[in-house]
Amino acid sequence: MKNFFKVKTLKEVMALVGSFKPVLQETVPIDEAFFRVLGEEIAADQDLPGFKRSTMDGYAVKADSTFGASESSPAWLTLTQAIPMGKVPEFTLAPGEAARISTGGMLPSGADSVVMIEHTDAVDETAIEVYKSVAPMTNVIDRNEDFKKNETILGVGTRVRPQEAGLAAALGLDRLKVFKRPIVGIISTGDEVVPVTQTPALGEIRDINTYTLAGLVREAGAVPVCYGIVKDNEEALFSVCRQAVDHCDMVLISGGSSVGVRDFTVEILSKLAQTRLLIHGISISPGKPTILARSGIKPVWGLPGHVVSAMVVFRVVVLPFLNRLQGLSSPPGSAITLPARLSRNIASAQGRSDFVRVCLKTDGQGLVAEPVLGKSGLIRTMVLADGLLEIGENVEGVERDTMVQIMPLSNYF
Amino acid sequence: MKNFFKVKTLKEVMALVGSFKPVLQETVPIDEAFFRVLGEEIAADQDLPGFKRSTMDGYAVKADSTFGASESSPAWLTLTQAIPMGKVPEFTLAPGEAARISTGGMLPSGADSVVMIEHTDAVDETAIEVYKSVAPMTNVIDRNEDFKKNETILGVGTRVRPQEAGLAAALGLDRLKVFKRPIVGIISTGDEVVPVTQTPALGEIRDINTYTLAGLVREAGAVPVCYGIVKDNEEALFSVCRQAVDHCDMVLISGGSSVGVRDFTVEILSKLAQTRLLIHGISISPGKPTILARSGIKPVWGLPGHVVSAMVVFRVVVLPFLNRLQGLSSPPGSAITLPARLSRNIASAQGRSDFVRVCLKTDGQGLVAEPVLGKSGLIRTMVLADGLLEIGENVEGVERDTMVQIMPLSNYF
Repeated sequence: MKNFFKVKTLKEVMALVGSFKPVLQETVPIDEAFFRVLGEEIAADQDLPGFKRSTMDGYAVKADSTFGASESSPAWLTLTQAIPMGKVPEFTLAPGEAARISTGGMLPSGADSVVMIEHTDAVDETAIEVYKSVAPMTNVIDRNEDFKKNETILGVGTRVRPQEAGLAAALGLDRLKVFKRPIVGIISTGDEVVPVTQTPALGEIRDINTYTLAGLVREAGAVPVCYGIVKDNEEALFSVCRQAVDHCDMVLISGGSSVGVRDFTVEILSKLAQTRLLIHGISISPGKPTILARSGIKPVWGLPGHVVSAMVVFRVVVLPFLNRLQGLSSPPGSAITLPARLSRNIASAQGRSDFVRVCLKTDGQGLVAEPVLGKSGLIRTMVLADGLLEIGENVEGVERDTMVQIMPLSNYF
Repeated sequence: MKNFFKVKTLKEVMALVGSFKPVLQETVPIDEAFFRVLGEEIAADQDLPGFKRSTMDGYAVKADSTFGASESSPAWLTLTQAIPMGKVPEFTLAPGEAARISTGGMLPSGADSVVMIEHTDAVDETAIEVYKSVAPMTNVIDRNEDFKKNETILGVGTRVRPQEAGLAAALGLDRLKVFKRPIVGIISTGDEVVPVTQTPALGEIRDINTYTLAGLVREAGAVPVCYGIVKDNEEALFSVCRQAVDHCDMVLISGGSSVGVRDFTVEILSKLAQTRLLIHGISISPGKPTILARSGIKPVWGLPGHVVSAMVVFRVVVLPFLNRLQGLSSPPGSAITLPARLSRNIASAQGRSDFVRVCLKTDGQGLVAEPVLGKSGLIRTMVLADGLLEIGENVEGVERDTMVQIMPLSNYF
């Protein structure tokens, strides 16, 4: 079956993202919505802040009472009652009057601006001198300056960062409709793989991928469910795969995806109900032997067994699909990249996209990307790396000191 | 009391970070250690991978059996037994022999390299032709190439990203000693502030800061504990502050830190046991009226009431202290900034550091930083912003098209 498949380019793979659908939505309290993706449009149900609000400590005035005021010729204003915080001032300010106001206080009718306390001197308890004139609306937020009633503020597919949560709070939304966190099943395969708690015999290796992939899935905002290690046994792998596909929104199988003797993954995927192979091989390095199948509505991935290749494929290929599943509206590949200066020449093979691990340093002129040397089987290279440099299919290499764009490997540097 | 305090520069404030100590440590399973900070040094207790490991599907050979091989003059090798995954090959490879091996398999003694399957042709079941010569160690990871026994791999103060978790797994560490997550108490103050679920009367505003700060605290890797809204009442605020200082590792009080009529914060802090005011005013904008006290070993902050100012102060000033508390080893301000081209001229006052909100876009040449206009009382400006541009104390402004360094506001763009 696999022979019918042509290796796909990264661009062809990214074109498949849109063929999957986001998971269902749920309504949760704001403090469970952090960093999740909004499932509803949010519009202002009122003007915000809803009243003329002072942005400074000072005096509410009518601006034209201060016109012409200066250090040498201050304006003399009569002090009227102070404005209590959180209350509607129950008086109208007359021309020539000033009312003490704090940051966040509501301007009385008649007032249109605030003189900062630093630009005044108290004459006595009934009057102040103002040393600087203000224009109307100086140091004031207008009643609908933050948001206008019925204005759409946040769209479906927006990530709820702290400020979006604050905005929801400002509008009185203590619960938000968000996409569920996608559940991602993780299966490690390989006769050579043993659990972390076991001492590997010669020829064996501990199960690194389960932990690395679980961390990546969490960082992406999804929930990892680990199915442990399945030995290279077709029946066992089929049974665990079926279980994972039933329970999860996406499945990651690592190991067993290269064209080797023990590659059951494709055979097993083809036996799952309603499952169709979409990709068998991507023209990227590392990560060429990646497999993607669609089982019903769910993406099922066969990732390379080398942890470094698996991480690169996750970051470059799987993450855009996972972002799609969790409802993020930004198109694949729209994430921000970091411009950096390359510290040395890099050669690259044509006909595939190379993803070179780099560590990022800062010098006087900005970021420097230093390629991390070492084979893709070495986890050391990922611990040293902060990002990936893509060298396109038709590029032979990149010269030292070229400005390049780095894809961050993690949100944490 | 406040009059004795001189406004401090940001540099003077950052110099105080080191005077606080990290919180205590605890040992947790790997999957609870993600994104936390390592409290122990990690060294390899064995060579990794511990054996000569193939990085390709192909044939284990003795390199000199392939010397001189080419398309026109292939080397003829005798096939010996295939190498099972996860097992020690129980034979010695002789010159002129080849043994089928999969990615991750262990090389038999006698073999020193792997020929990729693509560079061979099977002659029959007993022999292959090799079309390309290999040097010793080609397509092989040496027994200690990833890590050498007793080599220190990760230091105290390292953030546990997915790859560090994977590395720990490789070394058989299913539990890691990490710093506890600092507990950060959040108190909102102000007579004008009402709970999210309440409809504000004119002059009132909903409690935005609690949610925004809680999100920022979480994103930093700490645990927010919200104490709700305390009205401008000295006794009530004192009681809640004392409770928060007792229970938390750091306390954030927002509102009430400007030089206004209702500024109890300083008075209240001075009444707490073993509490000393360290900062009353920082020469930054927004955020000048920021307060920092040390209560025993704990930092207690008075943040501006405006949500935007509070967010900026959190990102620029509080976060380095919180990183110190959670044990991160990188010095304050060492986080990566994003180089971007400024889209328009910005003026700035001298004698203070201005933090201008910017949104980041990408054009053909890289990142563009577009200043977000609007007063610092407008939450809209933070929802539109992705980062902050610092304009130094002695700089009057920055011209359009200048390359600037942007401090990201959040891990998520």
